[in-house]
Amino acid sequence: MTDEPACPLPDDLPTPPPARRVARAQLRDGAVAEGMRAVPEETPVALTFNGTTHAVMMASPTDIADFALGFSLTEGIVGAAAEIESLDVIVVEEGIEARMWIAPEKMARLAARRRALAGPTGCGLCGVESLAEAVKPAAHVTAATRFTSAEVLAAMAAMAPAQALNHETRAVHGAAYYEPGAGLIALAEDVGRHNALDKLVGAAARLGLDPGRGLLLLTSRVSIEMVQKASVLGVGVIAAVSAPTSLAIRTAEAAGITLCAVVRADGFEIFTHPQRVALGPHEGQETHVA
Amino acid sequence: MTDEPACPLPDDLPTPPPARRVARAQLRDGAVAEGMRAVPEETPVALTFNGTTHAVMMASPTDIADFALGFSLTEGIVGAAAEIESLDVIVVEEGIEARMWIAPEKMARLAARRRALAGPTGCGLCGVESLAEAVKPAAHVTAATRFTSAEVLAAMAAMAPAQALNHETRAVHGAAYYEPGAGLIALAEDVGRHNALDKLVGAAARLGLDPGRGLLLLTSRVSIEMVQKASVLGVGVIAAVSAPTSLAIRTAEAAGITLCAVVRADGFEIFTHPQRVALGPHEGQETHVA
Repeated sequence: MTDEPACPLPDDLPTPPPARRVARAQLRDGAVAEGMRAVPEETPVALTFNGTTHAVMMASPTDIADFALGFSLTEGIVGAAAEIESLDVIVVEEGIEARMWIAPEKMARLAARRRALAGPTGCGLCGVESLAEAVKPAAHVTAATRFTSAEVLAAMAAMAPAQALNHETRAVHGAAYYEPGAGLIALAEDVGRHNALDKLVGAAARLGLDPGRGLLLLTSRVSIEMVQKASVLGVGVIAAVSAPTSLAIRTAEAAGITLCAVVRADGFEIFTHPQRVALGPHEGQETHVA
Repeated sequence: MTDEPACPLPDDLPTPPPARRVARAQLRDGAVAEGMRAVPEETPVALTFNGTTHAVMMASPTDIADFALGFSLTEGIVGAAAEIESLDVIVVEEGIEARMWIAPEKMARLAARRRALAGPTGCGLCGVESLAEAVKPAAHVTAATRFTSAEVLAAMAAMAPAQALNHETRAVHGAAYYEPGAGLIALAEDVGRHNALDKLVGAAARLGLDPGRGLLLLTSRVSIEMVQKASVLGVGVIAAVSAPTSLAIRTAEAAGITLCAVVRADGFEIFTHPQRVALGPHEGQETHVA
């Protein structure tokens, strides 16, 4: 027997636009002008499982089903898209609810994990247990694909023109999946960099992609959580516009992920597992770096 | 009777450094070089109250007592620093625990709020209630101080030289409090922009500042959460390097906060309550904008 959603869905409202034009005054070089600027919308999104709110995230109100699926995967709530028995995206006045239903035994495991994390567990261990949970090792990635540095630069160059919401607002992050030969296969945008990556993970699952064949592109800095999500995606190479944290580097090293960062038009830096990227002057040949 | 921490504190380890130098290979303009780069450390910080973990945040391992105090204030867990009966910062192998003890009735209120947010509450309301909690109105700010646009630009110009960790890594955010005449009074840095602001709120409470007299400076974009935290700080003017979200603008408008953003050396844009900033050519005179 499966728990069924007992509650009727509320009346659905239109999805908020991802950007709005707002009035503002502008001072530049001593001159004041009044006019409009496009700014990104930010909407609370409640991720609920079997009638219980697991998290509320502030997000761009686009691709919410991908976001809910990706979040469920990267948080380890489900191991595959098929484990989500139903997923409804409901727009209400207060925001958006992604209402998911999972098997009772999976819900029981999720509830137990929440109880274990949120104590009280007594005697000073609850802090340590919560800390250990936060830095648990990422799944090891075994993708065997290799790329040339020209392919890494071409991938990042392909991303900017596709970031429609960022083109409009200059204020949102992007995460994309690229395969040499096939080009930019999926791209997600969001006011939050973690959300953008969760949306991409959801899109990859929905599309049935094999991310071991390509590169993950990020417009942001790389924190441990971005590496943990990349390992769930199963991608062998991350290429990011900004810098990684020390903990992100250690996590990528342990997970077998090649971490390229500070990617600009003229090059990039490589922090872990350089064997997947041919850096040398003879593109296509492997160059060993420390 | 007050609950007392019954648990002995674990052996304390040294605090991790906020930045580390790591080896990496660099490709620029076709040339490959091996060398070192400074990257920010990122450490899980468990915020515990009366033996229960409330949250684990990934943060720069600096000013953790300020972070814990500021987080407790901006999350509304306590209304004043004095309500935290004890605060120990404990470094363990897995990260850092900020171990706080609050009065039993405050802990009971916190636990009830967590239960209400995390359901199960049945019948489709749990998502809506969680969403409403996420966008609850920020406290109204009544600061009467006014500034000239030159003062806003001078404040932001004072910030960059003081961001020591960002100077080293180019990869962390900053939040600072500035008063014309007194200069930069407090500054906090963190890998996360929300954490940097929480650290600043904690520092302001510890130092007994009156933030209604000055400006809040942010190196980041402005989301609703940044505005909500600014309202707890009680600051009348936010000046941020990057753009706000639409929801952040609506929240600042409702909270009576003046929101300046896209602050660069040559000027800035003003989105809400422009009466606190003299934009016009005759500095010191008030200029009304829409």
